[in-house]
Amino acid sequence: MRTEKEKMVNGELYHAADPELMNDRVNARKLTRLYNQTLETENTKRTVLLKELFGSTGENIYIEPTFRCDYGYNIHAGENFYANFDCIILDVCEVRIGDNCFMAPGVHIYTAAHSLDPYERISGAEYGKPVTIGNNVWIGGGAIINPGIQIGDNVVIASGAVVTKDVPDHVVVGGNPAKIIKQLEL
Amino acid sequence: MRTEKEKMVNGELYHAADPELMNDRVNARKLTRLYNQTLETENTKRTVLLKELFGSTGENIYIEPTFRCDYGYNIHAGENFYANFDCIILDVCEVRIGDNCFMAPGVHIYTAAHSLDPYERISGAEYGKPVTIGNNVWIGGGAIINPGIQIGDNVVIASGAVVTKDVPDHVVVGGNPAKIIKQLEL
Amino acid sequence: MRTEKEKMVNGELYHAADPELMNDRVNARKLTRLYNQTLETENTKRTVLLKELFGSTGENIYIEPTFRCDYGYNIHAGENFYANFDCIILDVCEVRIGDNCFMAPGVHIYTAAHSLDPYERISGAEYGKPVTIGNNVWIGGGAIINPGIQIGDNVVIASGAVVTKDVPDHVVVGGNPAKIIKQLEL
Repeated sequence: MRTEKEKMVNGELYHAADPELMNDRVNARKLTRLYNQTLETENTKRTVLLKELFGSTGENIYIEPTFRCDYGYNIHAGENFYANFDCIILDVCEVRIGDNCFMAPGVHIYTAAHSLDPYERISGAEYGKPVTIGNNVWIGGGAIINPGIQIGDNVVIASGAVVTKDVPDHVVVGGNPAKIIKQLEL
Repeated sequence: MRTEKEKMVNGELYHAADPELMNDRVNARKLTRLYNQTLETENTKRTVLLKELFGSTGENIYIEPTFRCDYGYNIHAGENFYANFDCIILDVCEVRIGDNCFMAPGVHIYTAAHSLDPYERISGAEYGKPVTIGNNVWIGGGAIINPGIQIGDNVVIASGAVVTKDVPDHVVVGGNPAKIIKQLEL
Repeated sequence: MRTEKEKMVNGELYHAADPELMNDRVNARKLTRLYNQTLETENTKRTVLLKELFGSTGENIYIEPTFRCDYGYNIHAGENFYANFDCIILDVCEVRIGDNCFMAPGVHIYTAAHSLDPYERISGAEYGKPVTIGNNVWIGGGAIINPGIQIGDNVVIASGAVVTKDVPDHVVVGGNPAKIIKQLEL
C-alpha cells in the first residue's frame, strides 16, 4: 500500500487532501512565514531556516523574502543560489537547481499540474512533474518554469519568459512560449 | 443623483477619490490584511473573513495568502473555489466565478481600466468592466484576465497567459495575447 | 579610486557585495518593510516613508503595499504618481518617472542586469542601465520594463507586456516582447 506522498513525489495521481501531506504543507507554510518575517539584518537566521526548509542546499544560499513553496523538502538548491523577491516554487515533485544560479524577482517554478479533463480535475486527483535546472543559470524576472521542464547549463531565461519546453545548454530563451533567441559562444 | 459607487459598479466613468469608495477600500484592505496575517492553522478564521469580504461564496472556499482585492463585495465565487498564493482581483465591477475553479499562484483578474486618452486619464475619471468565469475552470500561474472578459466552462488558461478576448467553453488558451491552443473533447 | 557605488550608478561593472552598498540595501529594506507594515489608514506615515526612501518625488505620491526596491535613492517619481500592489523596482541605476504616471498591480521595473557570459556572471560582477518613463504613462498589470528602456509621453503599456525596446510618445504597446499595437491621436 503506497502513501499519497509516495505517489505525489513519483509523479502519479494523488490527493492533496491526504493528512500527511496537509501536515507537511502546514509545516512548510510555518517555516516560510517565519522566513518572511525575519528582519533584513537576520542573515544567519534566514540561512538556518532555508536549510531546514529545503531538501538540500549548498553552503551559500540567499533568498529575498517573500518566498513561498509547497513542501520545501523537494527543493534541492546547489552552491551560490540566489533568488530575489517573490519567488514561488510549487514543489510537489523534485526541483533540482545546479550551482551558481540566480533568479530575478517574481520567478515561479511549477511542478504541480492538474488534468485537462474537468471531471478528473475536480475529483481532487492531481499530479506533478519534476523540474531540473543546470549550473550557472540566470532566470530573469517574472519568468515561469512549467512542470517537467529541464534547463541546461549556462542558460539565460529572459524576463517574462514562459518556459514550456526543455532548454539546451548555452542559450538565451525568451517570449511566451519561450523560444531560443541567442546561442551563447563559450 | 447617482453615487460614484453606482456609476462604478455599472461600468460608467467614476471618481475613485469619492469618500464612500475610499471608505469601502479601506475596509477591504483591513479585511485582506487580517486575512493575510492569519496563521497557516487558522482555516476557520480564514473562511469567516473571506465570506465577510466577498459578495457571495460557496460553502467551500480556500485562498492561500497573500490575497488582495479592491472592494471584495463585487467578487462572487462559486462552490469549491481555490486560489493559490498572490492572487489579485481588482473588483471595481463584478467578478463572477463559477463552481470548481482553481487558480494557480499569481493570477491577476482586472475589471479596472483607464481611458487611453491621457487628459481624461489624469483627470481622475476611470471605469471598469465585469469579468465572468464559468464552471470547472483552471487558471494557470501568472495568468492575467483583462477587464470585460468572459470565460466559458471547462476552460484551461495556460500559465503566463494574458487573456484579452473572450474564451469559449472546452478549450485551452495560452500565450500573450492568449489564443486557443487546444480543443477539449468532453 | 572610484567606489563600487559610483560604478553602479554609472552603469559600469560593480560588486554588490561591497559594504557601502550592502548597508544601503539593508536601509532600503528596512524602509520598505516599515512601509509595507503600515496600516491602510496611515496615509501620512506612508508619504513620509516614501519621501525618505526615494531620491525625489512630487507632492502627491501613493503606492499600495507591498512595494519593494533595491536602494530607493535612485528612484525619482514625478507629481501624481500611483503604483498599485506588488510593484518592484530594481534601482541599481536611476529610474526617472514623469508626472501623472499610473502603475497597475505587479509592475516590475528592472535596471539590474548580469553578463550573458556565465564566468563573468558568477564572478559577482554585475551592472545596470537606467530606465526613463515620460509623463502621463499608464503601465498595465504585470508588465515588465527591462534595463535601459526609455518610454515616451502619453504611453499605455498593456497588461502583461514585456518591454524590451524603447517606446515612442503616444502609443499603446503590448505582448512579449512588446510591440506597438495602437497609435494614439492627440
